[in-house]
Amino acid sequence: MPIPVETFQLDPAHPGTLQRQLQELVTAGILSGRLRPGDRMPSTRGLARHLGISRITVTLAYTELVAGDYLTARGRSGYFVSETAPQPPVFPDPPEPVPSQVDWTRAIGQRFPEAPVLSRPEDWRRYRYPFIYGQTDPRLFDHSSWRRCALQALGARDFEVLTADSYGRDDPQLLDQITRQILPRRGIRAEPGQVLVTMGAQNALWIVAQILLTQRRNAVMEHPCYPALREVLHLSRCNTAAVEVDAQGLPPDAVPAGTDVLFVTPSHHCPTSATMPLERRRALLERAERDDFIVVEDDYEFELAFAASPAPALKSLDTGGRVVYIGSFAKSLFPGLRLGYMVAPEPLIREARTLRSLILRHVPGHTQRAAAYFLAQGHYDAQVQKMARAYRDRRSVTEAAIAEHGLSLAGASNFGGSSFWMRAPDGVRSDELAARLRERQVLIEPAGAFFGPGRDPGTHYRLAYSSIASPDIPEGIRRIAEAGAEMR
Amino acid sequence: MPIPVETFQLDPAHPGTLQRQLQELVTAGILSGRLRPGDRMPSTRGLARHLGISRITVTLAYTELVAGDYLTARGRSGYFVSETAPQPPVFPDPPEPVPSQVDWTRAIGQRFPEAPVLSRPEDWRRYRYPFIYGQTDPRLFDHSSWRRCALQALGARDFEVLTADSYGRDDPQLLDQITRQILPRRGIRAEPGQVLVTMGAQNALWIVAQILLTQRRNAVMEHPCYPALREVLHLSRCNTAAVEVDAQGLPPDAVPAGTDVLFVTPSHHCPTSATMPLERRRALLERAERDDFIVVEDDYEFELAFAASPAPALKSLDTGGRVVYIGSFAKSLFPGLRLGYMVAPEPLIREARTLRSLILRHVPGHTQRAAAYFLAQGHYDAQVQKMARAYRDRRSVTEAAIAEHGLSLAGASNFGGSSFWMRAPDGVRSDELAARLRERQVLIEPAGAFFGPGRDPGTHYRLAYSSIASPDIPEGIRRIAEAGAEMR
Repeated sequence: MPIPVETFQLDPAHPGTLQRQLQELVTAGILSGRLRPGDRMPSTRGLARHLGISRITVTLAYTELVAGDYLTARGRSGYFVSETAPQPPVFPDPPEPVPSQVDWTRAIGQRFPEAPVLSRPEDWRRYRYPFIYGQTDPRLFDHSSWRRCALQALGARDFEVLTADSYGRDDPQLLDQITRQILPRRGIRAEPGQVLVTMGAQNALWIVAQILLTQRRNAVMEHPCYPALREVLHLSRCNTAAVEVDAQGLPPDAVPAGTDVLFVTPSHHCPTSATMPLERRRALLERAERDDFIVVEDDYEFELAFAASPAPALKSLDTGGRVVYIGSFAKSLFPGLRLGYMVAPEPLIREARTLRSLILRHVPGHTQRAAAYFLAQGHYDAQVQKMARAYRDRRSVTEAAIAEHGLSLAGASNFGGSSFWMRAPDGVRSDELAARLRERQVLIEPAGAFFGPGRDPGTHYRLAYSSIASPDIPEGIRRIAEAGAEMR
Repeated sequence: MPIPVETFQLDPAHPGTLQRQLQELVTAGILSGRLRPGDRMPSTRGLARHLGISRITVTLAYTELVAGDYLTARGRSGYFVSETAPQPPVFPDPPEPVPSQVDWTRAIGQRFPEAPVLSRPEDWRRYRYPFIYGQTDPRLFDHSSWRRCALQALGARDFEVLTADSYGRDDPQLLDQITRQILPRRGIRAEPGQVLVTMGAQNALWIVAQILLTQRRNAVMEHPCYPALREVLHLSRCNTAAVEVDAQGLPPDAVPAGTDVLFVTPSHHCPTSATMPLERRRALLERAERDDFIVVEDDYEFELAFAASPAPALKSLDTGGRVVYIGSFAKSLFPGLRLGYMVAPEPLIREARTLRSLILRHVPGHTQRAAAYFLAQGHYDAQVQKMARAYRDRRSVTEAAIAEHGLSLAGASNFGGSSFWMRAPDGVRSDELAARLRERQVLIEPAGAFFGPGRDPGTHYRLAYSSIASPDIPEGIRRIAEAGAEMR
């Protein structure tokens, strides 16, 4: 049966190319059973005229469809739906779903309360003054080099890396880059057997907590603290305590006796950005040695040390082999990549590798290899350098505007980073300030989530400059000051 | 200082292009501090001559290096190491790692014994007769369409999907494809809020077990059983029981009283390939309804139903809303993708989403969007169809050879799949048979891991035809028969 040209209508809102859209129309028609094996397709000329597109576009779409065996070409007679075209689904119209009869309140054995997250509108990029933390700035990210590396990792040479289930193994090329290129600049020397590749730092924290903590163990975190870590510890059902940080980060003397595992962010504390000085790092390690506890160091943003040389990682001072080091490519590459790593003595990495393989097997091979190429070809360094330069500029513009408009700075890393820790004006709640600013095209991050349930003093917010261009910063800060003054 | 051409030596074993290798040599030189800011690079002509490569290759490498700010071009004077080139690491020579002083036997709170895995040499592709399960056959996988879809998902239009940390959210385009294209062919109707995207089926099993099981709950699995599931249940510390399967899969009457959660593979049992008939499926659901337990259905290979129409999924018959359905793209796309999904009533999906976001946040945005394109453009159907055709052929060739050489078939799906379940000759251990065959270029999978610790009767092996070409099958089977006869 000849298929009339009117069967096909283009949708101007379709996100893809015309060729792709036409392919999708044909495959959808065949898979839904509307177009049947043996049906004759409209001629390329006729369909092009009907749709108002070029004939070559139709020919290319048809050629692709022949390759997928949706269509066959019969010489001069034109194109037909293939006799062996993919079949329509066996059950074209499944029954209406019924409401579940199960009492899920009873059936669910363990509940996972949603971690309080920083409120951020999904369309934050549309705001004029986004002081938003941890997302990628397209003006700074070297997207084209990433694309080239990712494409390279899609090649025939890497077919096995791309496709194979590699169980507990990691990509040796990525391990090589991490141990030879990344870790040395943190003063850390590690063998590949002391490194595990993870789905970002979050995954590394989860895995470490599962292994080191039990109901009888004592974990210590900083206060305030990265909210997802608090949830991870809570779920491990261990005992937890929180130690108040000061302007130099966590004070080693305040770590309670009986601590089994301490989670700490010495490079710059999350969220206050305080940097722990070298003497304190040494004192902390001595304390850990004396009390025999494990230290988990989340070195989440070390690449952005543009203002001063970063202090060496705690792990680099770790003569007792008791520091578990966690790193991430979320800032230097991008957070959607979900790529991080953990460095620790072999006995711990062995357990972590087995657990990771039960949870998810491994990080997709393509992700690992593309990152390995990006590192090996020097794009990573160029990228970090470009970001550092831009951040240095943004930071000084922000600092000047903060001073000019009299905002209250509550903390900052002394060597860089991507945000300031701010105090709202007296008597103004930071979440209310944020709500008012949102109406004025300004996004700031009220910091309640960092303090934990019931402990938010309502006083602080985070002001990040990683996603806002320098020229927009002064006006953004001016608006923050203006809104704050109105609300006092 | 001019850098002598002899600084650069090509390595014939380097896996990349000449241009890429040259770039890596220069960036490594700069990052190690050997080449310094202001140093003059050899001329393109001189370096090309020295390395015996074309001048255009050197020029292209230099141009790339300029883009990354490793080099600068100074008109006619040539190329120099940029004054603002990425810095060498701060700690060029970290101290030797010291052996850890920690007593890890004590520090590790929970151990994760390695799941027994099927033994498979890493270089299995080099074997002539690889009867190996679950890996990708490059002759069947539409690598070029995948590459195109992946490249599309690397484009500027998908920048946000690629880069953003999307916390608990999944790619709406992938959810749309799963609910509208994939699930209907299993008779399942689901809203996007009833679907969670996971890092493969393994990740879905892990998450479900964490939520539904506690130390007081009773989980039931099949015997024999997918080894990683046994480990997942073991680690949840619930009580476990195993029900012996027969030629029709799991007998519903044998499910013990007091069961809370049953894990089952009805489409074809793993590993025996037995298909559960429709009446048994209904009886199993009635039983679940009566005893109020949850059924987790792992529908791990449903796409490969080429021999007969597959029975509808258990989930499609589930009027009580008590089936959790787990699907995977490991077979239809490739296992290294780590992409799967879970379908269940909203209360369970909500918990699963929160837990997943604590464990790893989300599946990388690029993975999700590339798969969504592959599905939307009809490549998935073409792919599955192509595989099904090849497998049908390989299956019948294998079946004929098994009959001809008198091997003992112990089980097979009645509608397709990718393997046979085999019994070794009387008195011959399957692992010893496998070891002998390996020396003869034949790989089979002895099935001990499926029976669990201490319960391997040593009698069975799996014979998969997903990675071996039809013409090689008869000789492979002949060698299996020959080795078996020698060993009796």
